Amino acid sequence: MTSKAPPKAASAPAAPIALTRKKSDDFMEWYLEVCDVAELSDKRYAIKGMNIWRPYAYKVMHNIDEFTRKEMARSGHDEVLFPLMIPESYFRKEQEQIKGFGGEVFWVDFAGENKLEERLVIRPTSETAMYSIFPLWIRSHADLPLRTFQIVNVFRYETKQTRPFMRVREIHFFEDHSCFATYEDSEAHMNVDLEVVRNCLTRLALPYITSRRPDWDKFPGAHYSVGCDVVMPSGRTLQCATVHQYKDNFSKAYEITYEAPDGTRKNVHQTTFGMSERLVGATVGVHGDDRGLVLPPEVAPIQVVVVPIIFKGKEKPVLDACADVARRLRDKGLRVHVDDRDRNAGEKYFHWELRGVPLRLEIGPRDLEKQSVMTVRRDAGKAIVPMATVEAEVEKLLQHVQADLLERQTKFQAGQIHRAHKIEEARPLGGIVVLPVCDKATCGHGVEEALDYKTLGVPMDEPSDASRERCAHCGEAAKDWIRFARTY
Amino acid sequence: MTSKAPPKAASAPAAPIALTRKKSDDFMEWYLEVCDVAELSDKRYAIKGMNIWRPYAYKVMHNIDEFTRKEMARSGHDEVLFPLMIPESYFRKEQEQIKGFGGEVFWVDFAGENKLEERLVIRPTSETAMYSIFPLWIRSHADLPLRTFQIVNVFRYETKQTRPFMRVREIHFFEDHSCFATYEDSEAHMNVDLEVVRNCLTRLALPYITSRRPDWDKFPGAHYSVGCDVVMPSGRTLQCATVHQYKDNFSKAYEITYEAPDGTRKNVHQTTFGMSERLVGATVGVHGDDRGLVLPPEVAPIQVVVVPIIFKGKEKPVLDACADVARRLRDKGLRVHVDDRDRNAGEKYFHWELRGVPLRLEIGPRDLEKQSVMTVRRDAGKAIVPMATVEAEVEKLLQHVQADLLERQTKFQAGQIHRAHKIEEARPLGGIVVLPVCDKATCGHGVEEALDYKTLGVPMDEPSDASRERCAHCGEAAKDWIRFARTY
Repeated sequence: MTSKAPPKAASAPAAPIALTRKKSDDFMEWYLEVCDVAELSDKRYAIKGMNIWRPYAYKVMHNIDEFTRKEMARSGHDEVLFPLMIPESYFRKEQEQIKGFGGEVFWVDFAGENKLEERLVIRPTSETAMYSIFPLWIRSHADLPLRTFQIVNVFRYETKQTRPFMRVREIHFFEDHSCFATYEDSEAHMNVDLEVVRNCLTRLALPYITSRRPDWDKFPGAHYSVGCDVVMPSGRTLQCATVHQYKDNFSKAYEITYEAPDGTRKNVHQTTFGMSERLVGATVGVHGDDRGLVLPPEVAPIQVVVVPIIFKGKEKPVLDACADVARRLRDKGLRVHVDDRDRNAGEKYFHWELRGVPLRLEIGPRDLEKQSVMTVRRDAGKAIVPMATVEAEVEKLLQHVQADLLERQTKFQAGQIHRAHKIEEARPLGGIVVLPVCDKATCGHGVEEALDYKTLGVPMDEPSDASRERCAHCGEAAKDWIRFARTY
Repeated sequence: MTSKAPPKAASAPAAPIALTRKKSDDFMEWYLEVCDVAELSDKRYAIKGMNIWRPYAYKVMHNIDEFTRKEMARSGHDEVLFPLMIPESYFRKEQEQIKGFGGEVFWVDFAGENKLEERLVIRPTSETAMYSIFPLWIRSHADLPLRTFQIVNVFRYETKQTRPFMRVREIHFFEDHSCFATYEDSEAHMNVDLEVVRNCLTRLALPYITSRRPDWDKFPGAHYSVGCDVVMPSGRTLQCATVHQYKDNFSKAYEITYEAPDGTRKNVHQTTFGMSERLVGATVGVHGDDRGLVLPPEVAPIQVVVVPIIFKGKEKPVLDACADVARRLRDKGLRVHVDDRDRNAGEKYFHWELRGVPLRLEIGPRDLEKQSVMTVRRDAGKAIVPMATVEAEVEKLLQHVQADLLERQTKFQAGQIHRAHKIEEARPLGGIVVLPVCDKATCGHGVEEALDYKTLGVPMDEPSDASRERCAHCGEAAKDWIRFARTY
């Protein structure tokens, strides 16, 4: 039957298959285009900042989730799942957090035709849902530590400009919530979490800098917060992980206590640790180039694409060889796709380069004769390898791609971090500037305003003592070197 | 520091660690207790029917999700993720569905302090979210079939009594949404989906019956619906999977069309297929016994627990042997836990029996002498196996547990299905009754009322022609054998 609908997109020209923007010209324009053209995210859903995950991007996210799960299991965390909706009374118990999120949450008022007796918040994060239940789970010191995490979507009524994976209203989110008997135990756990960050981001070939956030930018309710920021190609930073020391701030509000061996009741000390779909945004933004995505092998949905080079009448031996190579690679646990579509080879190269497949293998009649395979790395470099040892050669090449992407970005990051002594000196530098500042919040704010930068905080991954320096803002004795940057 | 909170649960007696209910006495009482005592679900969250997934249950669910993902990849489906919130105007496009769900959805009216211009539905299912976007993805016949699925939580304002995993307001949900050029293609896909159901439920050792739902019980908007129902120990059925033929009902409302090779525009034909956390409920309910859970090995978070039998002064060789056996089993891909806590063996047996670990290994000094291992199946049976071949023996035992659970329930199910000719004859039978009914809806309803049963529908897995029979309600010529049961 023929629909009466007016002619639609199908009659319009097909979506552009090549990038029209260059990464070096305008990073953000390029980023938005690559998210669209490589079919990562569809922004055409009717609610701003609530985007559709297309299959290719969701596979990347799922790979990240799965290795995060492994890391969390290794470090003794258990996965839970708490409800999406939080009664207003739970949410209001901790005043700092309601202040921090109060203006940014979605409220459910009705179920069917019934106005709810108590309205419900759609979780912007899960402290208030979880901490209302933790008192039921924690009775004595024997129940500690309690180390839990969940992987869920959270919701924030973002009023700033939204961008796929970087700033959205429905956020794919990872959150660790752990409780300890003592402050010392919780401090030690900060390092456990920071090691998980290290292992996860290394699999994405993403170096980052670790800074202790200033008090005015810590997470609502936190005692202090540590941020892990990736330096994007524009020189701006993207916060990709945060680890928070809550001390007993929440456990007092939510009465999370335990019976100590001496019979007294004490408040637990808590830490949290969060990551999100920003890891996808950082991976796309950092590694991509003018031809599209460049995905680190550890997280690529397809690690190796095999393209048969076919001449009429000689299809079968080539296709058989491709299938055989693919099978051998899959037996090694690799994610392999054979592109045997009826298209020309150039079109296929283009298609998989746009999608960032780390390694392409080409096999044609001449390769069969020589019993060799042409390998083409997405980042750089071609080589002919013997077919007999293709598994070992491919594994080695993928390791090289992974290592080289990390090394390239590590160098880029190093070149983006500049120490300076005075604001005027810092102004033209771009990227991240590190200035000596005294301990007055007004001076931190003063530098932010003068540069139109945000404070990342005190470096935790390099020396931060600036007691021999003068504050870049007031000229009095400085305390720490502090990082400032433009942020996404 | 000592909290001022009043003494809490910690001073009260510890939670009961044994079941007080017998499955044979009252199935539902036993089920609710086992969900609680085996730490599967915490119902103490402040919103009725929105429960907390505790780690052990979430691992079972995650195992189910992961093999569902593999099945869906095998059958050519791509995973997507659509937003949780749906604008009211999207939701209202298809009238049947709004009628079906209108009274059961949660509405978001406010974001922060702002009343939204258009209120948003929290998805009860995702047809209306996805089908508003599919027209942008489907342009020509070359874009078909489009086979997608997502694994998300959905929300229904359930007014009936809620029960963990069986009937809740926040539902962990799997939904396949696929589009085809022709009705024939979509019909063929119904069988692809039914094969996925078969493969998934077999891994849970769950047999089931497949019935075509009567028109009055099909999914809102569906052309017809097929239900897969598990027979629970009480004789009631639990709907665990449904496959729907939508024909072009939704594609007309949402204008999902494609350009056919002849240049005309046609509506796509659609199918959907859903499963949910009810699979956990069915697994718990069907296989468990008076000692607690009995988990099929394919889905058990821990497949093998190794318990060292320790005598003072002889710990080390036994613990070393346990660690060695565990390592060898893990190398085979098995999920193994060594319980080396300082508790007596009996307590450990009890703990892991409650949690349904399919196989326990006991290793003590005498086993070391004989180089053997004691194996204890959770379902039934002990055997001593040689330590030298423990991997092969354990794999074989786990296969037997899996097969025997399936076989046991298959027999139970067969014994619960009764054909009858008249309502009076059916009344005392219990379980599922199959009666000849004519094609008048009033007769189907009449049988439902007379028995206080619901209609499951026309059997699709055994002969259903009842044209030689008389309708059990009106006495006129019957059409089909129809299944009726009490349902959860």
